[in-house]
Amino acid sequence: MTKTMRAARMHAVGEPMVIEEVPLPAPTGADVRVQVRSCNIVPNLANILANWTTWFPQNPLPALPAIFGLDPAGVVDAVGPDVVGFAPGDRVYVSPGRSCGACPECRRGEIMHCQHFAFAGYFGLTPTSRVMLDRYPYGGLAEYMLAPQSALVSLPDNLTFHRAARFGYLGTGYAALAKAQLGPGSTLLVNGISGTLGIGIALFALAQGVTTILGTGRNHDLLERVRALAPERIQVFSTADGGAIDEWVRDVTDGGVDGYISALGPNTPHEPFLQGLRSLRRGGRAVNIGATAGDVPIDVHHLMDQQQSLIGSCWFSAGEGQQMAALAGSGAVDLSVFEDVVFELDKVNEAINGLENRHGGFSNYIVQPTA
Amino acid sequence: MTKTMRAARMHAVGEPMVIEEVPLPAPTGADVRVQVRSCNIVPNLANILANWTTWFPQNPLPALPAIFGLDPAGVVDAVGPDVVGFAPGDRVYVSPGRSCGACPECRRGEIMHCQHFAFAGYFGLTPTSRVMLDRYPYGGLAEYMLAPQSALVSLPDNLTFHRAARFGYLGTGYAALAKAQLGPGSTLLVNGISGTLGIGIALFALAQGVTTILGTGRNHDLLERVRALAPERIQVFSTADGGAIDEWVRDVTDGGVDGYISALGPNTPHEPFLQGLRSLRRGGRAVNIGATAGDVPIDVHHLMDQQQSLIGSCWFSAGEGQQMAALAGSGAVDLSVFEDVVFELDKVNEAINGLENRHGGFSNYIVQPTA
Amino acid sequence: MTKTMRAARMHAVGEPMVIEEVPLPAPTGADVRVQVRSCNIVPNLANILANWTTWFPQNPLPALPAIFGLDPAGVVDAVGPDVVGFAPGDRVYVSPGRSCGACPECRRGEIMHCQHFAFAGYFGLTPTSRVMLDRYPYGGLAEYMLAPQSALVSLPDNLTFHRAARFGYLGTGYAALAKAQLGPGSTLLVNGISGTLGIGIALFALAQGVTTILGTGRNHDLLERVRALAPERIQVFSTADGGAIDEWVRDVTDGGVDGYISALGPNTPHEPFLQGLRSLRRGGRAVNIGATAGDVPIDVHHLMDQQQSLIGSCWFSAGEGQQMAALAGSGAVDLSVFEDVVFELDKVNEAINGLENRHGGFSNYIVQPTA
Amino acid sequence: MTKTMRAARMHAVGEPMVIEEVPLPAPTGADVRVQVRSCNIVPNLANILANWTTWFPQNPLPALPAIFGLDPAGVVDAVGPDVVGFAPGDRVYVSPGRSCGACPECRRGEIMHCQHFAFAGYFGLTPTSRVMLDRYPYGGLAEYMLAPQSALVSLPDNLTFHRAARFGYLGTGYAALAKAQLGPGSTLLVNGISGTLGIGIALFALAQGVTTILGTGRNHDLLERVRALAPERIQVFSTADGGAIDEWVRDVTDGGVDGYISALGPNTPHEPFLQGLRSLRRGGRAVNIGATAGDVPIDVHHLMDQQQSLIGSCWFSAGEGQQMAALAGSGAVDLSVFEDVVFELDKVNEAINGLENRHGGFSNYIVQPTA
Repeated sequence: MTKTMRAARMHAVGEPMVIEEVPLPAPTGADVRVQVRSCNIVPNLANILANWTTWFPQNPLPALPAIFGLDPAGVVDAVGPDVVGFAPGDRVYVSPGRSCGACPECRRGEIMHCQHFAFAGYFGLTPTSRVMLDRYPYGGLAEYMLAPQSALVSLPDNLTFHRAARFGYLGTGYAALAKAQLGPGSTLLVNGISGTLGIGIALFALAQGVTTILGTGRNHDLLERVRALAPERIQVFSTADGGAIDEWVRDVTDGGVDGYISALGPNTPHEPFLQGLRSLRRGGRAVNIGATAGDVPIDVHHLMDQQQSLIGSCWFSAGEGQQMAALAGSGAVDLSVFEDVVFELDKVNEAINGLENRHGGFSNYIVQPTA
Repeated sequence: MTKTMRAARMHAVGEPMVIEEVPLPAPTGADVRVQVRSCNIVPNLANILANWTTWFPQNPLPALPAIFGLDPAGVVDAVGPDVVGFAPGDRVYVSPGRSCGACPECRRGEIMHCQHFAFAGYFGLTPTSRVMLDRYPYGGLAEYMLAPQSALVSLPDNLTFHRAARFGYLGTGYAALAKAQLGPGSTLLVNGISGTLGIGIALFALAQGVTTILGTGRNHDLLERVRALAPERIQVFSTADGGAIDEWVRDVTDGGVDGYISALGPNTPHEPFLQGLRSLRRGGRAVNIGATAGDVPIDVHHLMDQQQSLIGSCWFSAGEGQQMAALAGSGAVDLSVFEDVVFELDKVNEAINGLENRHGGFSNYIVQPTA
Repeated sequence: MTKTMRAARMHAVGEPMVIEEVPLPAPTGADVRVQVRSCNIVPNLANILANWTTWFPQNPLPALPAIFGLDPAGVVDAVGPDVVGFAPGDRVYVSPGRSCGACPECRRGEIMHCQHFAFAGYFGLTPTSRVMLDRYPYGGLAEYMLAPQSALVSLPDNLTFHRAARFGYLGTGYAALAKAQLGPGSTLLVNGISGTLGIGIALFALAQGVTTILGTGRNHDLLERVRALAPERIQVFSTADGGAIDEWVRDVTDGGVDGYISALGPNTPHEPFLQGLRSLRRGGRAVNIGATAGDVPIDVHHLMDQQQSLIGSCWFSAGEGQQMAALAGSGAVDLSVFEDVVFELDKVNEAINGLENRHGGFSNYIVQPTA
Repeated sequence: MTKTMRAARMHAVGEPMVIEEVPLPAPTGADVRVQVRSCNIVPNLANILANWTTWFPQNPLPALPAIFGLDPAGVVDAVGPDVVGFAPGDRVYVSPGRSCGACPECRRGEIMHCQHFAFAGYFGLTPTSRVMLDRYPYGGLAEYMLAPQSALVSLPDNLTFHRAARFGYLGTGYAALAKAQLGPGSTLLVNGISGTLGIGIALFALAQGVTTILGTGRNHDLLERVRALAPERIQVFSTADGGAIDEWVRDVTDGGVDGYISALGPNTPHEPFLQGLRSLRRGGRAVNIGATAGDVPIDVHHLMDQQQSLIGSCWFSAGEGQQMAALAGSGAVDLSVFEDVVFELDKVNEAINGLENRHGGFSNYIVQPTA
């Protein structure tokens, strides 16, 4: 008799998830099966489910019906014969990033630049990424999932599954910090610092020696909560008060910031993004991980004259996730600031649509397929 | 009796240069005096002289009357007491780039990111760069000039002063190639390949192992001359024929180019610049050294999704110039493709305004203050 | 009926290979099967077969009886269901490097730093690498072999299988050049320039803009053949003449070389290695890919005072191999200098033991399992 | 009447310092004059004064009689006409590192690789560095000194002159950390962690997110004081107890450390240095800033097989010092662990010879020329 598991699946674009019994997959090759204890509901999920095929028709969704769920954490339950680094019982985060292993970039280790890069349980990043979604048709909104061992992050004992399921957005910020090349003693501007991405950037920037963090947002209370994380190193500015970000930055720095990370949410105007760019010192680096969309009017001549870069950054490698786990495990980064809001799998649609009442990025929306 | 020298000076913005006798400066500290044998007339000079104060009012011109002249080459004639690496008789190119030595960037060796960076004999790059223009009020359109030893490039015997005076635009391309991180075996798109910047990029890219160079421009004859430099490695495309650059690139590559350098001239539309951006493979790098101006509508979400960077690059260090000199000296790069068009100092205004009849970037317009 | 293939296998350490019929393997997962047209017999193979278990008892050989053969090239013949980038009929080089995909280094893309790194068909590099040898028990001395798609290099039409089978040693030099960070315009010392590694270093260094190559060896005729590859850029020095390498380098450079690659063969004395180190300029980088063994007496205080590095480099990624293929395909690197010496599979033992009569690194010893 | 100042000078190698009145120098060019409030007495000074000319006859001392004193801090008192970034009254650390500004390395910004690099008030690093000692014949053991503005570090208000005078050894560790490329989440072994260099490495490593620091030394009490800086992230091991460092590291890590910094003092045996090398994981990096002398027997074949590097690191740039000042100013690094032991200038010889009673690297020996 075929074993089954419970999974939430979307049968058509825009429809609610349906909880169904589907066959329990068995791992082959270098794949593992993970019992999912926690799956983060990222703020953007409802948008993606409803609009992806309209907004990005060139890039694929998983074949429907599909199990979505970007950021799972759980326990390894079974392993394929070629698995060498993990064993049943291991506590892991499962990165959704899937690289093909065959394109020129993969073959020289640039796994995040894979020509077929896809997010399992979410969408594909390139027109040819469907091949990876077909290979790994498993997201975290199910009791079990298969994933390649290369996508796992081993978790320290002091890190709960719910916090680990936050690694997707935390890691996006972590990789952005690396691309900004912010060594110890540097200054950083973060647009959207009180959001899901922004708080993580602040935490990891503090841990790696960024001296001064300048953060912007709208909500004064949330900004103050962020500032309180390290009052001597974090300064905040609300764009709701009417001033320009770059003018503020000129006032509080000597010639601008070394780095700027844009973590603005969807549907924000272009002006704060551009004010961030104008806040860079000569030679500074901007890294974009936010949802700013549309054609942004950028003065490329100024970027040239000032030797500045605008760097796109998308996700992070599982190996970077392992470094984050080490930081959390050692206490160098404290992830206890997040407030878990937990839903059972049956309530998945409420979770997806219930993100309105959250406390900015401090809220951590979780679906818990197994306990 | 005070010694004098002949110099071309501009007394007011937009006025022609006047040939005058001015005091011969004497080197102090770590400065050298160079007898100028050749000064390149860069295509943009007339524009800068007439429009800088209108276009970039925040950044300074030299104090008028001023000796302009961006790219001089000549012979060291006298040295200050602290000069350690050069001596009278040395053949040198003089980079106009002036760094302050005191700002945080200078003090960690990032001399091109100096907060007061200026081009002696041209303009300042930052609002506070006037201090460097005042310290070095000497361009190449005079019989002699002072410069710091840190700005010199020692020239090999096989390199003429006229070719060496080309180093400014050659070096701009050279530094852009470095920022694009184009290792051997890579592919490169160059927009504006038949211009003053573009041809140099092609020559140095070939010398450093870029396998495939895709070049665009308008003039078919000039494009064909560029292609003939290395027919097996260079392909060209004329935007005058109506197609889109990115479609062509997709046709002739597997997924796009590793790097893209924009070397478009002033007053070009934004569309070719953007088509270049869209030609990058996932993870590719764009470097802008062209004159594209205005607010360019850039899809920053696409750059993010595809892990792509847009990197501004402005000029090059004298040390990079020394590497270029080594390449030219060894024969690894052949600069004989350039056609010198030489003017005496008295004809400086004709030279500045006479760039219309040139053969694209193959023409090398030179003023020769001393012979 | 099980299909079979002919393979050379060693049954016990030090014994000759035996030609046998063994089962033809079928590819699974992301593996391909390659029909081997050429397998390079590297100079060190006889040594490895006879002495590995004595010299490096902590690191494993493949389980005996084993099919050896480090550097195969051939035609893809069948593919597993998860292969995405290759298809039957593709001409490929098969890198023997096997990374686990699961260790922290692999998970962040540092595939050459894998904790279980092994050379399929040769030996393991770490005490725990047996797991990779067991997973891929196939070398190139057989009619067919299995390999993961991540290990393949797609070959251009103008590159023969015999030349492609040279990629192992060529790539070792190529990766060493990258680690030495030798940009265009730099100077390089190569110890052992006329050997199998050295000639490849010279060819790729020329192609990537190393201006001056200083090469040492013993045999004057071979050194002169190397110099003739680019007489204006290569200088040679025979250690058979009694002088010291570093004295020669001081004579022909201004303060030493930017980079030094040691490609000395086995059983060479330590002194030339050390003279190479002493040839570096302040801030220079040494990369070791040679067979120098034993405890080399190194003045680490001098390395410190002079900000110099000694960098170990072992092999290269398949992606780097793809870049080498691009260079060869475009004509930027000409591999026609090598003289193929070809043996049928039946003559494998003669090939392994017959390397005495070669013309240094110009000879290319090949076993051809299928034609 | 010529103004004078009090200075300690050594008239002949090995003789005690003599306090003398010497002319007060006036700054020219881009030099500043600093009133010295504090000068660190580094542990190695007595050795250098007595033995340099014997140990390193190829590299110069300053011309005698000379004012020594490696690490001064004080107040800018007067500035030359070309100084742009500093003004009288500024509190500064004065790095002794002097680069020529003219050699190829300086001209591309690699100021620490200068061919004439010297430590003003200490010694020259290359045979041709006397030119820089002659240009700047001023150490910190005097009431005033001249220095180029490029050598200054601006100090935050919360940093005392005595702590700032520690920047030389702190910065040496800081630059070593950068060369080890220890990102957040990494592991580090420090040999000599309780010494003057070692404690600084620990403090800055913690601040930049090194997760796990493994430190070795001899004195159990001092090791315990180091461990107490961050008990959850620092582990210590005494070599006085008889075990091998690499065995300990294997026990407490998974496959070795990412980085290893040797900060061993003079006259230590080679074995701990080598055990440190053997503690690296595959792909790991060793950085040497210790005083290990003589020919160290290194297994370069192992470094090659394991893709490991041995990197020499000497001092740091003033710009790196500025980053350290930012870390101290923000509270990200707390330098209050050091115990100042202060001598007046008259007691300079006692200070130089009195370092025996110190508490390892926690003691901070200072001469205070002005108060």
